[in-house]
Amino acid sequence: MEFCTSVESIREVVTDWKQAGQRIAVVPTMGYLHEGHLSLMRIARQNADRVVTTIFVNPTQFGPTEDLEKYPRDLAHDRQLCQEVGVDAIFHPAPAEMYAPDFSTWVTEESLSQTLCGAFRPIHFRGVCTVCLKLFNITLADVAVFGRKDAQQALVIERMVRDLNIPIRIIQAPLVREADGLALSSRNKYLSAEERVRALALSRGLRAAQARYDAGERAAAALREAVLQELQPAADSIDYVDVMARATLRPVALIDQPALLAIAAYIGKTRLIDNLFLG
Amino acid sequence: MEFCTSVESIREVVTDWKQAGQRIAVVPTMGYLHEGHLSLMRIARQNADRVVTTIFVNPTQFGPTEDLEKYPRDLAHDRQLCQEVGVDAIFHPAPAEMYAPDFSTWVTEESLSQTLCGAFRPIHFRGVCTVCLKLFNITLADVAVFGRKDAQQALVIERMVRDLNIPIRIIQAPLVREADGLALSSRNKYLSAEERVRALALSRGLRAAQARYDAGERAAAALREAVLQELQPAADSIDYVDVMARATLRPVALIDQPALLAIAAYIGKTRLIDNLFLG
Repeated sequence: MEFCTSVESIREVVTDWKQAGQRIAVVPTMGYLHEGHLSLMRIARQNADRVVTTIFVNPTQFGPTEDLEKYPRDLAHDRQLCQEVGVDAIFHPAPAEMYAPDFSTWVTEESLSQTLCGAFRPIHFRGVCTVCLKLFNITLADVAVFGRKDAQQALVIERMVRDLNIPIRIIQAPLVREADGLALSSRNKYLSAEERVRALALSRGLRAAQARYDAGERAAAALREAVLQELQPAADSIDYVDVMARATLRPVALIDQPALLAIAAYIGKTRLIDNLFLG
Repeated sequence: MEFCTSVESIREVVTDWKQAGQRIAVVPTMGYLHEGHLSLMRIARQNADRVVTTIFVNPTQFGPTEDLEKYPRDLAHDRQLCQEVGVDAIFHPAPAEMYAPDFSTWVTEESLSQTLCGAFRPIHFRGVCTVCLKLFNITLADVAVFGRKDAQQALVIERMVRDLNIPIRIIQAPLVREADGLALSSRNKYLSAEERVRALALSRGLRAAQARYDAGERAAAALREAVLQELQPAADSIDYVDVMARATLRPVALIDQPALLAIAAYIGKTRLIDNLFLG
């Protein structure tokens, strides 16, 4: 497995692969890898000849009050997991390798990124779009795999790829949960034992909404209510519980098209997200 | 010579070339081609196996009061010139092929694009960056050629390529002039015979500044004054006559690093630009 920290060195590796006619998949991550990330890498493995995992805690997608500094990191463990899952190369740059002191070019998606997390994290998706386009360009990837845990991110990236004609195929991979329902996230590490129990309210709320949906309920307000009944007693604060059209990420009153039921809530000081695709 | 109007059809052409190991150069133009454009295509020809010329009057780089509607077009003549110069493919999309009704992703360069023309045309470089990135991605080009007539554009595009790690090489090509000094531009077509004479004040002013520079003058104010002596009597209005550091496009008082002396002025209702690289 190759381990590259400079753009020049990973470009050399992937250029050799491309010249040999091999197809490359990239899995962009911020490291502190868990089973959710590994599932993305396995899907990448099935869809390309070579798999590159990028490990980069991207500073430009964190707001000034967010958890950039304390975001968990464990590179040695990440390398071991990548090796085990058959990754061909890791790209792990320092921030200065990605952003020159006079860096001045940004990619903004101005529609899908405005609601849900975008309404609470104003520069987040600008940072995500910019770094993902950079990582696609650096790795010369044919395919990129994104998890549905970050559903809005996957949809924003798909829109960027369409709008900018980026020659890459985006694969959306299923959300991965613990046995008790908690969506896997590197941020789960922040949770105390007591908070870990309360955090189950997110997935329990979504299961309740799914049950109502399966029983024929199509009113967004009723599905939202089902989530809130579980979430309100458990969360310290709630950013949103929203039912959105997947095509626009704008609210729908009645689910008559593919929809996304998405949650962001604080358990203690930890901001957790979870979601459900409906229809 | 291939002639493609859809993204799908030009992609098919360039993908075949790439798979055969050929290097592709793209020359982005808005059509109404003149000798300046042809010089770019000849440089492209020398730097790649295949040359694609794009002909697209990009609506997103025109402000609401600018000349989008009346911008000159002559596709039959453009095709003939491309054929003569040995272009391998023309990409000539309709606006709807480039911009979906719900298009929502933009590339902005927020430093070099703020002065000179950017100060007078607020959305111009956002449109330029976005369409150029799209054209690079659509044509899978290894090289792109831009003329120094649009010096700020070339520098902004180079910055975008650096910042977003776009796998393309930018070549800056020399500005091409008529025998009497007028910089070639599709917009020269707008000039009446009387305006055509007055328009010579731009290049005459630059020549005067060059003479002062060659004689040892390094003060920006003095070089600017040399231009204005010629330009003020001839122009109907002047947007700017500025001496900028090429690295930052910010004003310099003394030329002690590579600089750009740039002009934008109206002759009648026609906005003309011209410039000189110093140092």
